[in-house]
Amino acid sequence: MTLETTLAAIRPADEPAMAAARELQLRLTKPAGSLGALEELSVRLAGLAGVCPPPLPEPATVAVFAGDHGVHAQGVSPWPQEVTAQMVANFVAGGAVVNTFARQTGADVMVIDVGVKIPLHGGANLLDANVRRGTRDMTAGPALTREEALAAVEVGIRVAGALVEQGAKALLTGDMGIANTTPAAALVAAFTGVSAGVATGRGTGIDDETLNHKIAVVTAALERHAPDPADPLGVLAAVGGLEHAALTGFILGAAAARVPVVIDGVIATSAAVAAAAFAPDSVAAMVAGHRSAEPGAGVALAHLGLEPLLDLGMRLGEGSGAVLALPIVTAAVRVLHEVATFDAAGVSEK
Amino acid sequence: MTLETTLAAIRPADEPAMAAARELQLRLTKPAGSLGALEELSVRLAGLAGVCPPPLPEPATVAVFAGDHGVHAQGVSPWPQEVTAQMVANFVAGGAVVNTFARQTGADVMVIDVGVKIPLHGGANLLDANVRRGTRDMTAGPALTREEALAAVEVGIRVAGALVEQGAKALLTGDMGIANTTPAAALVAAFTGVSAGVATGRGTGIDDETLNHKIAVVTAALERHAPDPADPLGVLAAVGGLEHAALTGFILGAAAARVPVVIDGVIATSAAVAAAAFAPDSVAAMVAGHRSAEPGAGVALAHLGLEPLLDLGMRLGEGSGAVLALPIVTAAVRVLHEVATFDAAGVSEK
Repeated sequence: MTLETTLAAIRPADEPAMAAARELQLRLTKPAGSLGALEELSVRLAGLAGVCPPPLPEPATVAVFAGDHGVHAQGVSPWPQEVTAQMVANFVAGGAVVNTFARQTGADVMVIDVGVKIPLHGGANLLDANVRRGTRDMTAGPALTREEALAAVEVGIRVAGALVEQGAKALLTGDMGIANTTPAAALVAAFTGVSAGVATGRGTGIDDETLNHKIAVVTAALERHAPDPADPLGVLAAVGGLEHAALTGFILGAAAARVPVVIDGVIATSAAVAAAAFAPDSVAAMVAGHRSAEPGAGVALAHLGLEPLLDLGMRLGEGSGAVLALPIVTAAVRVLHEVATFDAAGVSEK
Repeated sequence: MTLETTLAAIRPADEPAMAAARELQLRLTKPAGSLGALEELSVRLAGLAGVCPPPLPEPATVAVFAGDHGVHAQGVSPWPQEVTAQMVANFVAGGAVVNTFARQTGADVMVIDVGVKIPLHGGANLLDANVRRGTRDMTAGPALTREEALAAVEVGIRVAGALVEQGAKALLTGDMGIANTTPAAALVAAFTGVSAGVATGRGTGIDDETLNHKIAVVTAALERHAPDPADPLGVLAAVGGLEHAALTGFILGAAAARVPVVIDGVIATSAAVAAAAFAPDSVAAMVAGHRSAEPGAGVALAHLGLEPLLDLGMRLGEGSGAVLALPIVTAAVRVLHEVATFDAAGVSEK
């Protein structure tokens, strides 16, 4: 599917299915409302699927989109750029945190090279969809052309579509890219209107001096391009990254297929605000996996009106927070499938 | 084991194993500290096990201790007392939320009648360890004799010991008992020193008038008995419940066996403060599963110095919050077992 046909396929949540889920929750053997956020989540997922109970979100795949960033040259990260490719090799070999969490929760891991600078060796779970070997430095010009940004968005759309076609009932966002919290901060600022100082954080761990420099870099890029949130592709091209654009497409693809997409940290939430700018109804498909320690993630979640399931001070990326949240999503849906009603179990009501 | 031998077996966390876990976390392929609370948890569990990495917390069993409460006569709950026995039947039949969550996470469910009023029919996973058919009304006299409280504590100790002997590598607390948030509030107030108004909440859902009455009931019981936190068995006898006492023993039994015990909501946290009063070092074995919406649970967790893993507005009990948190505990430990080091994966450091 193209971006255009994908956007045309995205519809609002189904109200009758949501009403049915609310009504079913009241008949299950538990005090009304006692499952808190899980009850709201089950209602949202019924609305997305258009049926109550909605399907269990399994099998699930975490798609880790990897890219490099020209803005790395500005000294915004303490890590050498080749770590992006080294970590992709680690994902392919199964040695990273996201692999460990995926084995824990039964999710599959797929890695997509959408913009890594160094050519990568293959692997059964590595897809070569490289659009460009890293973005340009956004402080010197647009990070991407509109055509490159669109190509990356459509990589994400294609990956989502292929996974759903292969049977995935939940999609999870993952990312890898040294320096990618810098474009994420710029995207969050551009789409939500907060300043660079509010949207920018310490990423993988930088000192005060580097943080101030990073804020100045984001500010300079925003001033140079003055990205217009009404033109989301233009924003992605000006200050985005290839994995951010691909994740935007991945989220839109999930929404078009009416499959839940569990959102990880700040990279994915910056892509989620871009997706919402393309199609506000895509928010119905989004489940916020966790509250990243990165400030831009909190700004983006508030903008989307999403409450994260986990809040554990994590700031790793890779999709780790989405994979860790998956069993909670499944549990929320499983309640609607399996818990006995007061009537069936012979339990008195209050 | 008796209470006395159990208390004698509880030791502090092992410092060298904790240091080894901290050092290992720094060598794994992720930015230092990027797994937030999971890193601290992995260090604590290494300290409990006395080895790094500590064993994975599987298989796991949630033990649901059920009891009834004389204070129900004071009108503190809108639910009829027979719901305790009806819900036990629901647990045995596999129809409750805790069963659904346990199927999700692979935990076993065991139900222990330690104080249900109505005689129960058997089931493969139902243990008859009834000490007394419900407590006395604590506003009229002590809920239990010291001998009854001790017998219930030792039921919990025996269950923990038997499960560990059968191979359980994690124990999870569960509870069922209509009106049992009232003794839980009294226990939290007695052990932490907060007022009944601070420790008492809406339980399964009561209106303002009933809440004010419930606070007055807890206040009256505390004034009548003036329980002494230096005498934890006396506190459990005066204002406790049979499932609260059994959970206290269950937690102490886990600590003595150096097996992690994942704590559910307000009933279990009230038992956890009792366990800490018996043996302060038992806190090393405790993992707070979730932050219950019940205010006494938050007071108890702060008293114990524990941060919960989940905060989802849940207030169900049954062990639901402990079972839902189990995959996160496992993931935290699994990182130490499986994630590649920088050295082994050939990933550059910053």
